[in-house]
Amino acid sequence: MIVLKFIYIIRKVYDVGDILEKISRNGRIAAITKYLIENPNKVIGLNTFSELLNAAKSTISEDIVIVRELLEKMYMGRVETISGAAGGIRYIAEIGETAKKDFANRLCEMLKDPNRVVPGNFIYMTDVMYNPEIISKAGLILSSFFNKDEIDYVVTVETKGIPLAYEVARNLGVQLVIARRDSKVTEGPTVTINYVSGSSGRLQQMSLSKRSLKTGSKCIFIDDFLKGGGTAKGITDLLKEFDSNLIGIGVLVDNVGTNKKLINNYVAIAELKGVEETGEVIMNPSLLFQ
Amino acid sequence: MIVLKFIYIIRKVYDVGDILEKISRNGRIAAITKYLIENPNKVIGLNTFSELLNAAKSTISEDIVIVRELLEKMYMGRVETISGAAGGIRYIAEIGETAKKDFANRLCEMLKDPNRVVPGNFIYMTDVMYNPEIISKAGLILSSFFNKDEIDYVVTVETKGIPLAYEVARNLGVQLVIARRDSKVTEGPTVTINYVSGSSGRLQQMSLSKRSLKTGSKCIFIDDFLKGGGTAKGITDLLKEFDSNLIGIGVLVDNVGTNKKLINNYVAIAELKGVEETGEVIMNPSLLFQ
Repeated sequence: MIVLKFIYIIRKVYDVGDILEKISRNGRIAAITKYLIENPNKVIGLNTFSELLNAAKSTISEDIVIVRELLEKMYMGRVETISGAAGGIRYIAEIGETAKKDFANRLCEMLKDPNRVVPGNFIYMTDVMYNPEIISKAGLILSSFFNKDEIDYVVTVETKGIPLAYEVARNLGVQLVIARRDSKVTEGPTVTINYVSGSSGRLQQMSLSKRSLKTGSKCIFIDDFLKGGGTAKGITDLLKEFDSNLIGIGVLVDNVGTNKKLINNYVAIAELKGVEETGEVIMNPSLLFQ
Repeated sequence: MIVLKFIYIIRKVYDVGDILEKISRNGRIAAITKYLIENPNKVIGLNTFSELLNAAKSTISEDIVIVRELLEKMYMGRVETISGAAGGIRYIAEIGETAKKDFANRLCEMLKDPNRVVPGNFIYMTDVMYNPEIISKAGLILSSFFNKDEIDYVVTVETKGIPLAYEVARNLGVQLVIARRDSKVTEGPTVTINYVSGSSGRLQQMSLSKRSLKTGSKCIFIDDFLKGGGTAKGITDLLKEFDSNLIGIGVLVDNVGTNKKLINNYVAIAELKGVEETGEVIMNPSLLFQ
């Protein structure tokens, strides 16, 4: 079982069985753009569009050239051509370098607000992690680092990083997997591991349903905040139980104030140096975005 | 504080400061379509597009008419015009009736697989809840019930319903709020309530950071599965502590096999009648989608 591939008959999905008249080039371009953006990283055959829009494949090819050129010109993503029998086109969600830097700067400005410091010198980031406008952009930036890796799953651990990990999974066109802090009756048999938090040294647990991933998978781990790296290390161990590998890590904020990291290969959008006794938050875009 | 509105200077975001030449109508239509779809339920002034695309407002108006007509013709959503000084256009994510029914049917087919039944007669739904291809469509369907309500927040409780609630929040252009089972140090002061699970009668807890929502807010609750309705009732009580109201509930699957419901006003995509001793799952699209 696992996932019965959920493929739609596209005419049905778009409810267009009764459209008989021809659609203009402008109309086709709007439809193709929408369809591509809603199906990132999926190979879509030209006949899908040909059927949906009641137009010849050669016409659709011309339309696609126009969409591709505009997206590239405006740094709005790429349209790749995949040749061969199972070929077609694939939309890669992307964002320009200036836009990435601009986002990282605005994010830091927002998170540096001294009103965010809560008792224990933690920074309140929950509203940011659950804000679709911010997280959709952060997800776009993080997924751009992994869209050549042909990964099978995006993995996270509950709770705060879930929307971000979901956005990355959506952009990469793969399944999201969420490790739980405790196992639930609705998950069936689970695999549970113990791991040591890199920063506090405390022993913690995480679980995954045995059904949640296929053995031999390539995964990336996405989270809100990286401190000592203990959780990322725990994910690596958990994935080993599924004969699967962690091949990349992406986080929104890296706490660079923590000297001893258990991991050393990851991407972060912002770097937290620390919180001063005055309440001042020292944070800046990570080197990639300066 | 709460959320410093995260508004971008659009030319910066799209990294197009150096585009000087005119973009063709086809190109503008692709760009406008992409921008609208990525910013659902937000009012966007015509001058935003005018600046982004280096074109007169009258030209942009004509482009928008073309995009609007295509989207409506293909049941791909609506473009509303908001007049007045703060006016502009707003994209409402929508999906046709046939597509909704088709989705509900396919969802039921998938969930009825007897291999999904795990010990305790629960149905394993985790893979479905974390599949972006499925959840983006389910989110589109659920949000279409609430896009006239001008809500302030989409609320859920960790963990399985988070991606679905996130999709609904994104479509409605509002903040997501996630109640936790236990309070965390990074959340600052929290409000915690006890509630009784409608089906098991067990006492449970949920918490929300005091910072997570403004008083006097209109909220909807989105979750994966509705059984006795105890959680939805708990959310109502929790929101009362913020002088806020729950005005709607949407779930993927309603367990109609549970007779005594603590709530009675909600929308569900599918209805679970029960799991037979033979392992057969009795499930069908809810009345709205038949």
